[in-house]
Amino acid sequence: MRIGVLTSGGDCPGLNAVIRSVVHRAVVDHGDDVIGFHDGWRGLLEADHRKLDLDAVAGVLATGGTILGSSRVRPEQLRDGVERARENVAALGLDAVIPIGGEGTLKAARLLSDAGLPIVGVPKTIDNDIASTDVTFGFDTAVGVATDALDRLKTTAESHQRVLIVEVMGRHTGWIALQSGMAAGAHAIVVPERPFSVDELTEVVGRRFAAGKRFAIVVVAEGAKPRPGAMDFETGGTDVYGHERFAGVARQLAVELERRLGKEARPVILGHVQRGGTPTAYDRVLATRFGWHAVEAAHGGAFGMMTALRGTDITLVPLAEAVEHLKTVPAERYAEVDCVL
Amino acid sequence: MRIGVLTSGGDCPGLNAVIRSVVHRAVVDHGDDVIGFHDGWRGLLEADHRKLDLDAVAGVLATGGTILGSSRVRPEQLRDGVERARENVAALGLDAVIPIGGEGTLKAARLLSDAGLPIVGVPKTIDNDIASTDVTFGFDTAVGVATDALDRLKTTAESHQRVLIVEVMGRHTGWIALQSGMAAGAHAIVVPERPFSVDELTEVVGRRFAAGKRFAIVVVAEGAKPRPGAMDFETGGTDVYGHERFAGVARQLAVELERRLGKEARPVILGHVQRGGTPTAYDRVLATRFGWHAVEAAHGGAFGMMTALRGTDITLVPLAEAVEHLKTVPAERYAEVDCVL
Amino acid sequence: MRIGVLTSGGDCPGLNAVIRSVVHRAVVDHGDDVIGFHDGWRGLLEADHRKLDLDAVAGVLATGGTILGSSRVRPEQLRDGVERARENVAALGLDAVIPIGGEGTLKAARLLSDAGLPIVGVPKTIDNDIASTDVTFGFDTAVGVATDALDRLKTTAESHQRVLIVEVMGRHTGWIALQSGMAAGAHAIVVPERPFSVDELTEVVGRRFAAGKRFAIVVVAEGAKPRPGAMDFETGGTDVYGHERFAGVARQLAVELERRLGKEARPVILGHVQRGGTPTAYDRVLATRFGWHAVEAAHGGAFGMMTALRGTDITLVPLAEAVEHLKTVPAERYAEVDCVL
Amino acid sequence: MRIGVLTSGGDCPGLNAVIRSVVHRAVVDHGDDVIGFHDGWRGLLEADHRKLDLDAVAGVLATGGTILGSSRVRPEQLRDGVERARENVAALGLDAVIPIGGEGTLKAARLLSDAGLPIVGVPKTIDNDIASTDVTFGFDTAVGVATDALDRLKTTAESHQRVLIVEVMGRHTGWIALQSGMAAGAHAIVVPERPFSVDELTEVVGRRFAAGKRFAIVVVAEGAKPRPGAMDFETGGTDVYGHERFAGVARQLAVELERRLGKEARPVILGHVQRGGTPTAYDRVLATRFGWHAVEAAHGGAFGMMTALRGTDITLVPLAEAVEHLKTVPAERYAEVDCVL
Repeated sequence: MRIGVLTSGGDCPGLNAVIRSVVHRAVVDHGDDVIGFHDGWRGLLEADHRKLDLDAVAGVLATGGTILGSSRVRPEQLRDGVERARENVAALGLDAVIPIGGEGTLKAARLLSDAGLPIVGVPKTIDNDIASTDVTFGFDTAVGVATDALDRLKTTAESHQRVLIVEVMGRHTGWIALQSGMAAGAHAIVVPERPFSVDELTEVVGRRFAAGKRFAIVVVAEGAKPRPGAMDFETGGTDVYGHERFAGVARQLAVELERRLGKEARPVILGHVQRGGTPTAYDRVLATRFGWHAVEAAHGGAFGMMTALRGTDITLVPLAEAVEHLKTVPAERYAEVDCVL
Repeated sequence: MRIGVLTSGGDCPGLNAVIRSVVHRAVVDHGDDVIGFHDGWRGLLEADHRKLDLDAVAGVLATGGTILGSSRVRPEQLRDGVERARENVAALGLDAVIPIGGEGTLKAARLLSDAGLPIVGVPKTIDNDIASTDVTFGFDTAVGVATDALDRLKTTAESHQRVLIVEVMGRHTGWIALQSGMAAGAHAIVVPERPFSVDELTEVVGRRFAAGKRFAIVVVAEGAKPRPGAMDFETGGTDVYGHERFAGVARQLAVELERRLGKEARPVILGHVQRGGTPTAYDRVLATRFGWHAVEAAHGGAFGMMTALRGTDITLVPLAEAVEHLKTVPAERYAEVDCVL
Repeated sequence: MRIGVLTSGGDCPGLNAVIRSVVHRAVVDHGDDVIGFHDGWRGLLEADHRKLDLDAVAGVLATGGTILGSSRVRPEQLRDGVERARENVAALGLDAVIPIGGEGTLKAARLLSDAGLPIVGVPKTIDNDIASTDVTFGFDTAVGVATDALDRLKTTAESHQRVLIVEVMGRHTGWIALQSGMAAGAHAIVVPERPFSVDELTEVVGRRFAAGKRFAIVVVAEGAKPRPGAMDFETGGTDVYGHERFAGVARQLAVELERRLGKEARPVILGHVQRGGTPTAYDRVLATRFGWHAVEAAHGGAFGMMTALRGTDITLVPLAEAVEHLKTVPAERYAEVDCVL
Repeated sequence: MRIGVLTSGGDCPGLNAVIRSVVHRAVVDHGDDVIGFHDGWRGLLEADHRKLDLDAVAGVLATGGTILGSSRVRPEQLRDGVERARENVAALGLDAVIPIGGEGTLKAARLLSDAGLPIVGVPKTIDNDIASTDVTFGFDTAVGVATDALDRLKTTAESHQRVLIVEVMGRHTGWIALQSGMAAGAHAIVVPERPFSVDELTEVVGRRFAAGKRFAIVVVAEGAKPRPGAMDFETGGTDVYGHERFAGVARQLAVELERRLGKEARPVILGHVQRGGTPTAYDRVLATRFGWHAVEAAHGGAFGMMTALRGTDITLVPLAEAVEHLKTVPAERYAEVDCVL
């Protein structure tokens, strides 16, 4: 068999572990040839690729980033490229293509699959927002990095008698905020799924100070939004250049909380550090299993499918199902944590 | 409600997170009283306990060990103490007892439950060998510690051009060996479920050197045993004092591999470092959820049950079911890793 | 002997290790009494204190923060309180006071010492800007945290083909920027000691892209300032609330570099995470030695002095000397790193 | 200029950082050519080498091991090879050779230097036992790894109410034992410089239990020896194969302490994990500075010298001086720690 693999979308710890696993399983066990496309879908569309043998993946299991490079893609872009993708797959003699990526990538993968290309997807998201799989690789590492930071920030908040508002990743869902907040014992957790009220947050934090505590840690997902009418500011805002992109909800909440509580409040924006670097053991194992099962799916002709974790098993689910909706944090998980607003 | 909690058996990262979670849920949300028994079952049998309020569990979420102390117990010992346990539960006015522990503890818990005491168990094992739950807290931390060590040992093995035989925990099952070996890219993994042949191991490692590699990492679970007749030594053995306890399979394999391969081989025995210290974020979240759901079970009158993880949900399973058999690594997991003997 | 100890100023990993060491040396070896003042100088001025025995410092060696609390102080404030400090020292029967803190604290300490109080200072600064000592505790931890973050950010910058501008602590000196930048192999390092030119930085980063590299990491100390006339913006600036405090040099450099280079550039502001949490082994040892030697100094009557590291020895230096000037990065250290602007 | 570089002796975190720094300084700043010899002195004697340009050292700063390979050497072996070394240096047109290694390597380096070869040494030892330099790279990482392990072991010792005897590296000196023991708050530290008495150790640990504590951590350097006549066993001993090499002092002390104290005592032998893997920021900076200054020394014609850290400065010291004696822990450092026997 001849297999192409590519990585697409944002950085995510475990990408290299998947690539390595695909190569090991395919080359060693099946005697396949494997090629890697450069920079995600671009590589497929431009037939920009290289051979991946065992030497090519030596030493990459524990590394962050992706040896193949990546790029972001909008599914529409792929739509225009279906024919070129088909031609390149044919010209390169590929029996299967394994794209590794997030929601956008999987939508693009579905599009190609619907057009008849032999696709097996591997889901990737540090945000944990892909439906149909219990979890994907990268998320555990992101939560671990955020939790380490929260552990450190706790002593600082306490020494300085401050409120720290710590912004973690999660544009549409609160998974990282929830898990790292639970893991570090945050005093309030603010998530996109539940638009917040500053009054309510002020009350939660204020109650803590009233009880004699000297500091508080609030974890807020970057995508958290105020409840309509509940706050007198817009998330986003502009910086000194009239540039919107760097403004964050944590900075604004810090200003509000300080004003209302009369306590020093400071924002900490963890940022990109959550999505880079060496994956946790958990993520390396999951990524390795995904790669192994993607190759098996290709050999079994299970195209149009995506690898998924269900309990302790790796299964295959239709790409169509995976991209139907985002996986948000369910109500029963919130119920377990008093401090989610 | 009035709830007693105890921790029993070996050290396991996440015990304090469970205790803290039980207290938070019970005291804050239900207005319960919680007491903690000292040193596991001994505390229950001797009514040696202390009140657990919020202050008592402040700052313990991320700590290893157990603030209540622990002791090992054989279920038979409990058998003789059922009446004293019953008396103490009555005298202390307890509506529920939550023992947190491994196989032995859960067997004892079942015994007390069968005798009519209001028990809700919480499973604990770094070895991941308790049936009925996908995984328990402590395991992820143990795998993480072992993987970190393997990452470090790789460069040393390579620089010294050696075979390193790394012994990890797992008396009856190969879970830690399998997961850490996968995560670190070990070249052979030896597990208790599959008695090994030294000839076969020699061949696997020898093939690697024949292919031009300069080092090899073998991960071996402490409980690994030679295939009958396949090796001319007994695991265990005696040390200079005629003392059996320190001998390990890794030391003996190192001697054998060095002799047969003509390459320097060295044992590394990771030991207790795998079961102590701060839990990973994953384990803290799981432990916290287990504590929360144990309190809910108590309030719901679901006695004789144990908390369990199934997929992403916490469920309750009968204690009877949990202790029926050890959860060994299934064949399909081995199939995913070429290097498991 | 009767000794008082206090911690003052910002959080710094190792404060508790000093306190513990003072108690161990004084109580166990000399049979002294030790008391701790709460919240820094405030505790001394208000005689707000508690007894510190071995139990009080059990388990704190590896913890961040300070068990005594802290507060910031301006030396002028102390000036007005010299008499109250003297009265309290007398009333409490103290033979020595050991303040642990940074530049402000040591200036205050000198003031009290000049007024005749029996003071032995212990220097503390994560910024490494205190003269007369090779280094102080806290700095190694801060550099380690920053380096870990930079290691992670590298893979992300590479995957996303971006310039990342990483802001680290250092209001007046570039020590953290220099050491973490060297440790992580940053491509440019911007420090307060050398006002920067955006043109020059653009050129340095641009040259890297011209040579075919796909990403760049720039480390910038928070106190870095543009060379007069060399940049068309002011550091600082205001946010959506007209609030100055959250604006940072990294954000502005990111905007500038993106505009000039035509490459995505993003700021990452590490913030408080650098000054909290468990200290490195290096910092714990140094802090422990400082505590031990501070007690010896007190017993030797060496008042008006401060503990200092010189090579591998702990020595005593006059407080007067320590606070004379900030310790900036010397030119020969810059020469070792091509990429310092 | 044309420079050859080699790494010799045991693994040590930071070797690659030195190599990289030599290449960066020599190639970028001086326009030199650099070659690397394979497997230490063997590479020099057999002229087995490769070109080292910027690409060759890309990404190695934070990696453990050595990209050039290593081998152990006895200075006598070099004696016989002086002529071949001289011929190869001439044939390859080398103006300088930079060997990076420990005591044995530096002795060999001195021998070649005395024979007129242009040598600049870089000291390397995780044991910190090289005289003439305050410290070398690798040591901080080893202490960090040992301290992390001790932190974890503490909770396990406490939960199990045990004595843990933790054996760390240090064949001739107690530096790692002293620093990690101080950093982790060990209850007794046993070092090679002070032959121990089991009676005394039993008394120290026993006193702790008598004071109501439930566990104890003893750190022992691998090279620790009993005081003559003070113990009824020989360190070393034989294992089941009559093989001496795996027996360790920690195992024997555990047996003795358990017998005398009536408390469970267990050995933990940290082993090779202390010398592999990614270096700390401290070690990366020191290694980078050593590489930079070695190149400067070569350009300045300062042959027969070795780089050294003195305070915060990198200086050059004669190789002759560096190998005169081992740097043992001085008495005043022991005095700072009550628990060193």
